[in-house]
Amino acid sequence: MRSPFASAEAARPHVPDEVVSLDDPDHYSGTHRIAGLADGVFAIAMTLLALTLIEHLPPGALSLAEFEHHFGVPLLVYGMTFIILGTYWVSHAIQMHYVVRADRPLMVRTVLFLIFVSLVPFSTGYLGTTARFLDPLAIALYCANLALCGFALQRTLLYATLDPHMLHRVFDKRIFRALHVSFLIGPALYVVAGAVAWSVSPRVAFAMCVVVPVFTFFPNPFWGKLYARIVTDRKAA
Amino acid sequence: MRSPFASAEAARPHVPDEVVSLDDPDHYSGTHRIAGLADGVFAIAMTLLALTLIEHLPPGALSLAEFEHHFGVPLLVYGMTFIILGTYWVSHAIQMHYVVRADRPLMVRTVLFLIFVSLVPFSTGYLGTTARFLDPLAIALYCANLALCGFALQRTLLYATLDPHMLHRVFDKRIFRALHVSFLIGPALYVVAGAVAWSVSPRVAFAMCVVVPVFTFFPNPFWGKLYARIVTDRKAA
Amino acid sequence: MRSPFASAEAARPHVPDEVVSLDDPDHYSGTHRIAGLADGVFAIAMTLLALTLIEHLPPGALSLAEFEHHFGVPLLVYGMTFIILGTYWVSHAIQMHYVVRADRPLMVRTVLFLIFVSLVPFSTGYLGTTARFLDPLAIALYCANLALCGFALQRTLLYATLDPHMLHRVFDKRIFRALHVSFLIGPALYVVAGAVAWSVSPRVAFAMCVVVPVFTFFPNPFWGKLYARIVTDRKAA
Amino acid sequence: MRSPFASAEAARPHVPDEVVSLDDPDHYSGTHRIAGLADGVFAIAMTLLALTLIEHLPPGALSLAEFEHHFGVPLLVYGMTFIILGTYWVSHAIQMHYVVRADRPLMVRTVLFLIFVSLVPFSTGYLGTTARFLDPLAIALYCANLALCGFALQRTLLYATLDPHMLHRVFDKRIFRALHVSFLIGPALYVVAGAVAWSVSPRVAFAMCVVVPVFTFFPNPFWGKLYARIVTDRKAA
Repeated sequence: MRSPFASAEAARPHVPDEVVSLDDPDHYSGTHRIAGLADGVFAIAMTLLALTLIEHLPPGALSLAEFEHHFGVPLLVYGMTFIILGTYWVSHAIQMHYVVRADRPLMVRTVLFLIFVSLVPFSTGYLGTTARFLDPLAIALYCANLALCGFALQRTLLYATLDPHMLHRVFDKRIFRALHVSFLIGPALYVVAGAVAWSVSPRVAFAMCVVVPVFTFFPNPFWGKLYARIVTDRKAA
Repeated sequence: MRSPFASAEAARPHVPDEVVSLDDPDHYSGTHRIAGLADGVFAIAMTLLALTLIEHLPPGALSLAEFEHHFGVPLLVYGMTFIILGTYWVSHAIQMHYVVRADRPLMVRTVLFLIFVSLVPFSTGYLGTTARFLDPLAIALYCANLALCGFALQRTLLYATLDPHMLHRVFDKRIFRALHVSFLIGPALYVVAGAVAWSVSPRVAFAMCVVVPVFTFFPNPFWGKLYARIVTDRKAA
Repeated sequence: MRSPFASAEAARPHVPDEVVSLDDPDHYSGTHRIAGLADGVFAIAMTLLALTLIEHLPPGALSLAEFEHHFGVPLLVYGMTFIILGTYWVSHAIQMHYVVRADRPLMVRTVLFLIFVSLVPFSTGYLGTTARFLDPLAIALYCANLALCGFALQRTLLYATLDPHMLHRVFDKRIFRALHVSFLIGPALYVVAGAVAWSVSPRVAFAMCVVVPVFTFFPNPFWGKLYARIVTDRKAA
Repeated sequence: MRSPFASAEAARPHVPDEVVSLDDPDHYSGTHRIAGLADGVFAIAMTLLALTLIEHLPPGALSLAEFEHHFGVPLLVYGMTFIILGTYWVSHAIQMHYVVRADRPLMVRTVLFLIFVSLVPFSTGYLGTTARFLDPLAIALYCANLALCGFALQRTLLYATLDPHMLHRVFDKRIFRALHVSFLIGPALYVVAGAVAWSVSPRVAFAMCVVVPVFTFFPNPFWGKLYARIVTDRKAA
């Protein structure tokens, strides 16, 4: 129980006593187990991305040109996937910064989110070979997997942010809106990229997959300004 | 030492001073190492489930129909196993929410539990191939492994809940009973599924393996009502 | 800084101010990073033990007799290695229960300990095949690896227990002696088993490798009594 | 929020209110998620180093001479890489001892650091085979990977140490300089080793790769003295 929530009590919606669950005697649990499992799954999924590289190690020595031909595409796919997984991890850490209590349904939704994160090394291994990186099916599966990660993450956020008892006292409606929009940009772009791969051009879709992680990972000036305005407004109020 | 247990002192059974162990100078240790190891093993076992998928990656491109034929069964097995591991993880997290102290025997029992969790990627890899998913032996081994996970988890719960010094002060007899019953439903169903696979029909047993995780993972209205009644009664008392 | 050490100050040996290190502005750091890395490495090493099983998955279905012939030895080796790794993990957790502060040399010694833990899946994979489980070299390597784990763990204990600033206030000379002896039993037995494998009989050595984990993992009545006497004496004093 | 920073407030540079980010309602978050992900990635990267050993397991029994011929180079490469990863982990832990708050850009830089750490099992697997350990390209890639790890780590340090709000109150300019120099020694040596491998002699470069981890891992008397002087001076002031 990390926060007394004294100041949030007045504004909280009515939660009938019958809805309390056994899973937390004071209705809620800490969030360290969710953080522990999520950090573990992300760390392993990220590191397993490199495993498909290892499994294609050739038996003898290579020239630099041969190395580039052999590992150029896989290394590019490795880098772009690591960065998008990093984006989701950062988003999850930011979410759990506001979500200071947990209950069983939030744990369940976190597991459902991690199912898709764990699948990323598989869909990346399927995409990240020189033979398949322009295969429409491979790109569509890759985009579908990353879109599902994003939507499932947004779903954990949605569940937690609808119960004010779980939230840090500084959380308010504007942060709610800003977070939800920022969580949905990535998955929405992957839906577009997957559709492009399937029906227009795998080449354009692959280019989108290279660009999207950079776009979502690095600080976005638009969001920076919105964030600053929210905080300023909150202080003025 | 996270909890003074002041209010639990009066009701605790007599523990003779001779039974104290060196492993904890104040008789008990914290539980963060148990949480750390369990989160790690679960995260890796869950992510390794996808590794058997990676190892079956074909060299060339596939059509959608070929992909479904090649990965349909493995992906189904991946999903259903991830969810049951998620159930066990949630159960362990809920258990450790009540168990606020640990001693050496609890650590030992946790390791014995994790032996079976670590084996799950193996028995899942054995089951999750198109060639073997209706093989009675493969299903029986899979069910045996998941049943052993559940029984070993229940054994850690049993050990901890018999020593009131390890427990959060809100823990009481009704929570004890409700938790133990809910922990045993999953493994009991896997015993039945394994027996069905071996002696009746592998097809029916496989269908049970698909259904059981959903049944145990998602909130159960019956248990929700029981939980609510326990909390209400506790408050009235 | 988890502990003020007020009561230990009087008895501490003189530590000259020049010996302080930059690594901790108050001379020492917390131990949570050591716990995090150790839990991670143990969790992965334990789970990778099952990976060598996965890699020997046959393509088609097996009868029960064939399964036993194919996986009997590997599963036995898996179980006995998991239990000895579990013993070392429990020992490390107990050690870190007393060691409440850390400095750079303790981190370095922990990394050296984990080098040998990480190698266990390799030496186990080398031993755990039906073709090699009675090969003197395979058993000797396996025993050498597990002995080195134990000695390196004891070395981290030695470093930490010689600096009273790092220790929990309840730690005393008798606990020091009891812990050190109990940490050395396992590795000493593996030295014997390795020598037996190399010069007497691989069959006897393999039997020792099966028995040692059980002996060191489960509570030992002799040690239980010693522990109880230490605590009783400490209270009387 | 682990530290009130009362004593650091007076000396802090002006941070305009507009620069605050949504990511932390009080401008900054805790560092436990960064520690959790980093410990996980390091633990897995370290343990996966042994995986390339496992994958070269021969089917039958080996004599001691054959074992040395087969595994001598891979085991040497395993050991030296584990130790340099251990060095980086220790450096990261020491850094996070001073950095007590985090924001989104620090998380982003940490992910960029971990991209290179996760690649180490790949470049090590490429180097660590008897066929390739004197191949200039393999050594150059290995050195480039380890140099990039070090530079990316130093970049996380640079970002954090330029914002006094993130730092422990005991952190000062001299620790800043000492840490930055000590963080850059390792990567600088790998740049030299890589250049030597490519243009002079792969044999000399490989020897450097064996020596550098020992040099950076174990306590350096020069740095020990500098550290002691810093602390003494700080106390005198």
